[in-house]
Amino acid sequence: MKNIIITISREFGSGGRKIGEEIAKRLDLKYFDKEIIDKAAKDSGLSPDFIEKEEQTFSNSILFNLATSGGQFGVGGTSMVDKIFVAESKAIKEFAEHGGCVIVGRCADYVLKDKNSFNVFIYANEAFKTNRIVNEYGLDRTSALKTLKSRDKTRSRHYNYYCDRVWGDRKNYHLMVNSSAYGLDGSVDLIIECAKKFCEK
Amino acid sequence: MKNIIITISREFGSGGRKIGEEIAKRLDLKYFDKEIIDKAAKDSGLSPDFIEKEEQTFSNSILFNLATSGGQFGVGGTSMVDKIFVAESKAIKEFAEHGGCVIVGRCADYVLKDKNSFNVFIYANEAFKTNRIVNEYGLDRTSALKTLKSRDKTRSRHYNYYCDRVWGDRKNYHLMVNSSAYGLDGSVDLIIECAKKFCEK
Repeated sequence: MKNIIITISREFGSGGRKIGEEIAKRLDLKYFDKEIIDKAAKDSGLSPDFIEKEEQTFSNSILFNLATSGGQFGVGGTSMVDKIFVAESKAIKEFAEHGGCVIVGRCADYVLKDKNSFNVFIYANEAFKTNRIVNEYGLDRTSALKTLKSRDKTRSRHYNYYCDRVWGDRKNYHLMVNSSAYGLDGSVDLIIECAKKFCEK
Repeated sequence: MKNIIITISREFGSGGRKIGEEIAKRLDLKYFDKEIIDKAAKDSGLSPDFIEKEEQTFSNSILFNLATSGGQFGVGGTSMVDKIFVAESKAIKEFAEHGGCVIVGRCADYVLKDKNSFNVFIYANEAFKTNRIVNEYGLDRTSALKTLKSRDKTRSRHYNYYCDRVWGDRKNYHLMVNSSAYGLDGSVDLIIECAKKFCEK
């Protein structure tokens, strides 16, 4: 299992990031998150803070791209979002060259489509996600519900736009796990079991 | 695990039925398939052969239902498909009263929505499904491809019509397994592992 590349796509609030971190720890794999931002920043000349902030609101920029049929910096140009996507994809590909790892989000299943990565999608019921957002981010219930919907919309638009696939479409994943059915620890255990089966085949 | 109720929804050709049978055998659970038809037949007065044949082409009857805004036997009446759905649902509920079991298809996840059943959706890539259909049913590749598309359309329409949910929508399942990633045996193993985790929570 030391060379397995696990990509995790996830609904906001489903615990995908925590699950990914724990899987990496348990399987002694590298976990790439901030490193992707740092590398993309270095490569693109943008600041890590700017990229991190942009990642939250990708969809607005994409809508802008579509509206102008060009880019954020003029028709036919490369927009800021394009630039970030290209730089992050490059970083992901480079990291994946150096052995087993876990990568959460950032269209990694698509970016690594030729690498035989194990692609997991994590989702959860609304109550589970809302509770997590309330507890983790200190939001009230109404804001939490609003946030989880808007963040998933952002993720979906960003993925669909750059990957020409549908975010959450089962075709793109080897496993889809409803984390509210098992809890975070249970989800970690079962994804590891499934990853083993994936490697055995 | 002896009281767990496992429902399996599946794409045609993904091996869902075989996987379900094997899970039941391995966990020493009852497996209901033909028994549902027999019980529904007894209850509805229709013949088992007729029900079995109707199950393959549900969608046509449903389209007919929609077109006439009533039923196959006249406006406002109960159609044949309605009758089968009601009788099969009743059979499924009765079977599920008597302890752990595995039920494949027939909207069981919806019918048993108040029973805390473990709901699994099994899918696979096109090559895997086509190969299975060619080998299992002796069809040529073109017919196999056509069949798998039309059968999934039938399943989807039937489910969406009666359950007021979307067939294959992750919200309805605790686990979605791409059987082409693990093979049938591997899929059996991993679903059993996940069922254990589901029971532990």
